[in-house]
Amino acid sequence: MLRTHNCGQLNMVNVNQVVLLSGWVQKSRDLGGMTFIDLRDRYGLTQLVFNMETNSELCMQARKLGREFVIQVKGIVAERQSKNSKMPTGDIEILVNEIQILNVSKTPPFTIENETDGGEEIRMKYRYLDLRRNPLKDNLLLRNQLSFEVRSYLHGNDFIEVETPYLIKSTPEGARDFVVPSRMNPGTFYALPQSPQTFKQLLMVSGYDRYYQLVKCFRDEDLRADRQPEFTQIDCEMSFIEQDDILNTFEGLTRYLFKKVKGVEMSSFPRMLYDDAMRLYGSDKPDLRFGMPFVELNELAQNKGFSVFDTAELVVGICATGAASFTRKDLDGLTDFVRKPQIGAKGLVYVRVNEDGTYKSSVDKFYSEADLQSWAAKMNAKAGDLLLILSGDTHPTRKALNELRLEMGNRLGLRNRNTYAPLWVVDFPLLEWDEESGRYHAMHHPFTSPKPEEMHLLETDPAKVHANAYDLVINGVEIGGGSIRIYDKDIQSRMFSLLGFSEEDAKSQFGFLMNAFEYGAPPHGGIALGFDRLVAMFGGSDSIRDYIAFPKNNSGQDVMISSPSSISDVQLKELNLVVKLN
Amino acid sequence: MLRTHNCGQLNMVNVNQVVLLSGWVQKSRDLGGMTFIDLRDRYGLTQLVFNMETNSELCMQARKLGREFVIQVKGIVAERQSKNSKMPTGDIEILVNEIQILNVSKTPPFTIENETDGGEEIRMKYRYLDLRRNPLKDNLLLRNQLSFEVRSYLHGNDFIEVETPYLIKSTPEGARDFVVPSRMNPGTFYALPQSPQTFKQLLMVSGYDRYYQLVKCFRDEDLRADRQPEFTQIDCEMSFIEQDDILNTFEGLTRYLFKKVKGVEMSSFPRMLYDDAMRLYGSDKPDLRFGMPFVELNELAQNKGFSVFDTAELVVGICATGAASFTRKDLDGLTDFVRKPQIGAKGLVYVRVNEDGTYKSSVDKFYSEADLQSWAAKMNAKAGDLLLILSGDTHPTRKALNELRLEMGNRLGLRNRNTYAPLWVVDFPLLEWDEESGRYHAMHHPFTSPKPEEMHLLETDPAKVHANAYDLVINGVEIGGGSIRIYDKDIQSRMFSLLGFSEEDAKSQFGFLMNAFEYGAPPHGGIALGFDRLVAMFGGSDSIRDYIAFPKNNSGQDVMISSPSSISDVQLKELNLVVKLN
Repeated sequence: MLRTHNCGQLNMVNVNQVVLLSGWVQKSRDLGGMTFIDLRDRYGLTQLVFNMETNSELCMQARKLGREFVIQVKGIVAERQSKNSKMPTGDIEILVNEIQILNVSKTPPFTIENETDGGEEIRMKYRYLDLRRNPLKDNLLLRNQLSFEVRSYLHGNDFIEVETPYLIKSTPEGARDFVVPSRMNPGTFYALPQSPQTFKQLLMVSGYDRYYQLVKCFRDEDLRADRQPEFTQIDCEMSFIEQDDILNTFEGLTRYLFKKVKGVEMSSFPRMLYDDAMRLYGSDKPDLRFGMPFVELNELAQNKGFSVFDTAELVVGICATGAASFTRKDLDGLTDFVRKPQIGAKGLVYVRVNEDGTYKSSVDKFYSEADLQSWAAKMNAKAGDLLLILSGDTHPTRKALNELRLEMGNRLGLRNRNTYAPLWVVDFPLLEWDEESGRYHAMHHPFTSPKPEEMHLLETDPAKVHANAYDLVINGVEIGGGSIRIYDKDIQSRMFSLLGFSEEDAKSQFGFLMNAFEYGAPPHGGIALGFDRLVAMFGGSDSIRDYIAFPKNNSGQDVMISSPSSISDVQLKELNLVVKLN
Repeated sequence: MLRTHNCGQLNMVNVNQVVLLSGWVQKSRDLGGMTFIDLRDRYGLTQLVFNMETNSELCMQARKLGREFVIQVKGIVAERQSKNSKMPTGDIEILVNEIQILNVSKTPPFTIENETDGGEEIRMKYRYLDLRRNPLKDNLLLRNQLSFEVRSYLHGNDFIEVETPYLIKSTPEGARDFVVPSRMNPGTFYALPQSPQTFKQLLMVSGYDRYYQLVKCFRDEDLRADRQPEFTQIDCEMSFIEQDDILNTFEGLTRYLFKKVKGVEMSSFPRMLYDDAMRLYGSDKPDLRFGMPFVELNELAQNKGFSVFDTAELVVGICATGAASFTRKDLDGLTDFVRKPQIGAKGLVYVRVNEDGTYKSSVDKFYSEADLQSWAAKMNAKAGDLLLILSGDTHPTRKALNELRLEMGNRLGLRNRNTYAPLWVVDFPLLEWDEESGRYHAMHHPFTSPKPEEMHLLETDPAKVHANAYDLVINGVEIGGGSIRIYDKDIQSRMFSLLGFSEEDAKSQFGFLMNAFEYGAPPHGGIALGFDRLVAMFGGSDSIRDYIAFPKNNSGQDVMISSPSSISDVQLKELNLVVKLN
């Protein structure tokens, strides 16, 4: 070893020991006859001291060391005169006797500090330098800790990790596949998995009743800030279970992780019907760190002469506790907010519940004090609260009010990153109608089981059928989702036909699964958690990119290695491919 | 849960409990008025009992259950009259009250037994049924256990697991890449990693001084029985270390695994120079479960009038202990063996050391008793031993004698699967000459460090330069290998130019790494262990395919899912590709 200790390890116990340290020069300071260098490695910083009086040659050598030089030093651990209680090694310093320069460094293109002066682009290009900074290092350490704890928990609960293949088969259903041309089988392609879905179901057929895998998945989609073409899933499947067993197991995992990694004790997670989540929060992933549930006001607010409400399918509001103090300007700001094209409300009605028990609203012309009082009563509003009301068609109005609710949560400081509000949203619709293709799509995926008691509606009113499908939501973020699967070949056939698969298509794409179901498939179900997003949530951030060592940019490029890139004609020829740009 | 217990769990402690079990019908037997069913799940078998007298309806129902039906039963645990001490549940049986058929099964295409009647091809097609059989199940459980223990050990030793990207950049060096066309960047391709080599080195530059990853790697090679296009590596890298630190760390891992998983205590691993391994065993992966080292006989055997030896570059033999009893027919068989084209020796000379101290050889015409005695003495042969001698050009002769030595090991029963002989082979040559391309190739890879004391030979006699490169070998199988890396930009440039890279090529392919080396790269090195092979070794098999859940066949196909397959014209068009078959 080129060191006896690391740079985060030494303290008063080690005083007078001769030690060997290796690391990077974080910074150096010349103070009179002394030179101080902070030596950095993964574990921390240690202060090195050089004395011009006692060893001028060595001190001169130390003064010439640039930032990010890699050095090895030998010296004696000494107690510091002025201790730094903020550093684990702050009680000591190293009186250096020898320096060896292990490698030199050019001046980095940005500072290697917690707050850096480098822009996004240059830091992506020099990702290996950005990764030296504590914030990114802490993110990767957190990721490592979480993946280890996920495995510990699942392993301890009899789950076995099985690696499923990466070179699989392209299926047109769902998002776009990345494909991989096969040289040995000319003209054919593998696909990279969007998830190991069918393989984990086959493992259930094989009898491996508790499967998991931390696995890379791939989707060739146009990227948004929080999407990556390759991402990591905690993928799980269980047999001989019912929906509650899955929820309990993965609630257990989540609570274990919060306890172990963040020291946060969580009580049991509320379970909310999808229909209720939409009705009460206008979202299938409500942020429950704060209340402000939707209250529907059709009965109280319609037929009083206010045509906007009278012609609306839905009149619905939220009560913002203590927000009656919002100024006219604040309220105008909120109106502008809900009118933004991506939110799309036409206007916003407000009612202030004044401290003196009177009301002030934007619709005073149409409604009496008694009317407003009845709204306030229904919405459980108290003096000092603010009612915010939207109206229009049900779905877009709920969607807009969801955005307004979250915005109010932000403005009122109710969305603290260190508070965690998990819940299960259950009983999602089985299908969703796709206007573009004029047919139903599976809301979760084609293997999701309809609720048995609604099975009879499959042919007559498929939109009404709910699924045994569930999402784990924390702080308004969908952390994962899953479903109880179909395990009966005939029901699976019916599903495929409902989704517009011809019998031939279903067979060519999923024939192996349908076949497998003929040989004793057990009842089973599972879940997949987005690991990148889970880590980001633990890290207190929305950006998964900061929790991935080498992410792609929004064009799917790795600008550090300049990938993707062209390949040679020889390679193309071997693959029987011609590139034809449009 | 559709069960209160699993099928491997119940014993005398549970007698009189009411239990719910779920599983597959392994087999059923009707004996007089009783029907017995073995119910199977991942955990074991439990005997179910149905009594025609007490409940004829239920018993009739049980008799109709076919093999591999999935059922749920409710019943009472009872002590068996005739116990089966070979089964963990052999003391008890379940007196069943209720049966529910969870799913039916067609008759499987082969028997789900430890020894099956199904051929390779049909079992690959119905892999999900083959995986129900104990041998394959045990393999996957072993794999799961090993991966968990590998992570435990490395995690406990401050290694952090970092996920490196799967969509990287194609490099023509080494084996063929699988490539992935980029839709968002028309005409360009990602490549799937053959290993995360450059990324793990960048992580060292970033300061993550102990990295590991269990990671899928991809090579588009023509397949042999023990190769797969996708395979799993335990990939590791360390900074601020020397070669011995890596060897000690991964020797530690290996010993931990053998102790933990197989209960085998290993002493420290011998370390053998590559040159010695070649000289003493004719192989860079000697099987040290037995001795029989090569003994060179040029001095003793040449210039005695036997022209075959006289004209040979090398005369070399092994002494097979106790094999003097080999018959003439045995010896003819060995001669045929070494003459096989893939071994390529021209002939085999033998010397029997008879029990009475006399010698009998195939070259008695040319050598006196004293000559033969001098050979025997040099080879440490005793009465009853057999000397087997080959001659010819050094390299092919050693190669052939290696094969003969292994064959003798087999014939003499010296290669016991439950004995483990690990060693490190160190100081591999840096380069190997490639006749076809007329240039040097990196024996390990282009990032491997030459031994500093031989650096001066790089330009004058590159073939003589050894590398700080090492392999872990167990029982003649290469389990993994690695090297100390170059971390100096100029040495890396010299290596690239020695390997025939133009400056431009080196820059376009590895520019990011060369750049990274300018910003303070630490001394580092690493290793990669073949996880599939390691698991197979622990399982006592040579076939990695039996330790992979869903392997490909020798044509790179997954015959279960019929992959690779053609993709749609829409997909091809989006990727700007045209398939052009030759």
